[in-house]
Amino acid sequence: MLTIGEIGERQLIEDFKSFLRPEGRIGPGDDAAVIGKDIVVTTDIVSFDRHMPAGMSYEQFGWYAAAVNFSDLAAMGARPIGITAALALPPSLDAQAAYDIMSGIDQCAEFCGTGVIGGDTKPGPGIVAGTALGIMDGRCPMLRTGARPGDIVAVTGPLGGPAAGFTAIDNGLDYQGAKERLYMPIPRVAEGIILSESGVVSSCMDLSDGLGTALNTICESSKVGIDVEFDFIPKEPFVAEISEKTGVSMEKLLLGWGGEYELLFTADPNRFKKLYDEDLEFSIIGMVNDSGHPELVREGKRSIIGNGEY
Amino acid sequence: MLTIGEIGERQLIEDFKSFLRPEGRIGPGDDAAVIGKDIVVTTDIVSFDRHMPAGMSYEQFGWYAAAVNFSDLAAMGARPIGITAALALPPSLDAQAAYDIMSGIDQCAEFCGTGVIGGDTKPGPGIVAGTALGIMDGRCPMLRTGARPGDIVAVTGPLGGPAAGFTAIDNGLDYQGAKERLYMPIPRVAEGIILSESGVVSSCMDLSDGLGTALNTICESSKVGIDVEFDFIPKEPFVAEISEKTGVSMEKLLLGWGGEYELLFTADPNRFKKLYDEDLEFSIIGMVNDSGHPELVREGKRSIIGNGEY
Repeated sequence: MLTIGEIGERQLIEDFKSFLRPEGRIGPGDDAAVIGKDIVVTTDIVSFDRHMPAGMSYEQFGWYAAAVNFSDLAAMGARPIGITAALALPPSLDAQAAYDIMSGIDQCAEFCGTGVIGGDTKPGPGIVAGTALGIMDGRCPMLRTGARPGDIVAVTGPLGGPAAGFTAIDNGLDYQGAKERLYMPIPRVAEGIILSESGVVSSCMDLSDGLGTALNTICESSKVGIDVEFDFIPKEPFVAEISEKTGVSMEKLLLGWGGEYELLFTADPNRFKKLYDEDLEFSIIGMVNDSGHPELVREGKRSIIGNGEY
Repeated sequence: MLTIGEIGERQLIEDFKSFLRPEGRIGPGDDAAVIGKDIVVTTDIVSFDRHMPAGMSYEQFGWYAAAVNFSDLAAMGARPIGITAALALPPSLDAQAAYDIMSGIDQCAEFCGTGVIGGDTKPGPGIVAGTALGIMDGRCPMLRTGARPGDIVAVTGPLGGPAAGFTAIDNGLDYQGAKERLYMPIPRVAEGIILSESGVVSSCMDLSDGLGTALNTICESSKVGIDVEFDFIPKEPFVAEISEKTGVSMEKLLLGWGGEYELLFTADPNRFKKLYDEDLEFSIIGMVNDSGHPELVREGKRSIIGNGEY
């Protein structure tokens, strides 16, 4: 029998799906599950170990723990109605750190129009398991399965910020703006609601595992292919500079790095113009086709976009 | 500044309440929070370290992780509609252990009439954070605040099982029945629904922190006192025997030990007889008064019932 480490997290989550029996309409292969009439629920763990880069405060860690959950709601188009937080923290930690984490969770919840509705704490190595609840208010949840050849592909904001921020820290470069993208990701809740309200979106997910993985997931779930034009990808202004100074490729920073919380969506090509009338920033980055996988087109050359970090 | 260990879990959870902003009717001082129209949500962490006594299987640990959450729903009278499970497990652990934990969670969810609706996994020391969702179906949630002097006080089942099971293991005694109470607590979901449906219950909570703590909490929350007749407390048949063989007092096993998942409730003395017509086992153990704290009456002698383990 293999160990958990040998099997790997991704496969384990895949295997766990056999246990999932959604009570409602939507399967749990998506960002979140829909139960009852239109309650959406999602859970995500973050840890000091993996999600607290150098320089991140406990308050920012709390914000981050909440943001990853609200981002999953945003990807479905749900309006957040609460979050619970289960904390497993070292007994030797300053109690102020615990209050700061809760305060960060609270601030992120407030930013998303809701609040903390429950919690628990036990001794542990520094883990926060958040569970966010949302409601669809009659809108249809956006899934990963609806992309069709001919749809446009778009993202809600400039990419590469968190990856560039991490790379800057890793290389001792001082880019405050880049670090902020890493420390305090903005869950695109308002954008998700506008997108689901519009009725023109055929699929949507967040970029928490990076653009490359998200594109692969949409292709797999919708049984389509996607061409992405490298030049069309909206980029944080500092990404090129950090790439140049550190030697980390633009592709890696823009596609192969998680911790990015913009939304990727596909939309009906005949009706998507409706989105320009909304209070919504987005950039078209490509088109859906029937090739079965995502490809990057850069200066006329094509390359297959990999799954996971690269 | 004090550390988390110095402040203690109970105080930390108390302090966290300042962050809780329930979106709905019921405050988060109760077993679970009510949001939206009648969705109930609760979260609880369990760990290998604290909640996996010798001899407990991974499947039973999974059951336990789910049961503690469903028990919180039961205490409000909610019908479970789903559970999410966030696992933080050591990468060196056999993957089979992870599947067994999920299977245990799944079986407990099925026992409670629902299923697993989402999950996440990350490396960690062996922690499961469950979040259970329930719905009131129009019933009023049972709170801790409604007990009035003159109400009867009752529990849903025989007590002392988990404490006696742990004590037996600790002393090398072989009591299979006692161990099972410890390893696989039964969340009293059906009982909670019947109790809330009845309309005669004035307050309710589960015994996860022990009968003594529960009695103190009801007294504090409802601003009442409670007299409990020692002889009235329903006891698992093996409790007296294990107490005698190990020297651990009956009071300790029945009142001063957590991990007990029966429900404690108070009910209108003029109308509680209605409960005898229901498919419900319960035992009256005492009466509510205005003394402000719980007291145990044993062979005519009174003693104050302490908070926490003793």
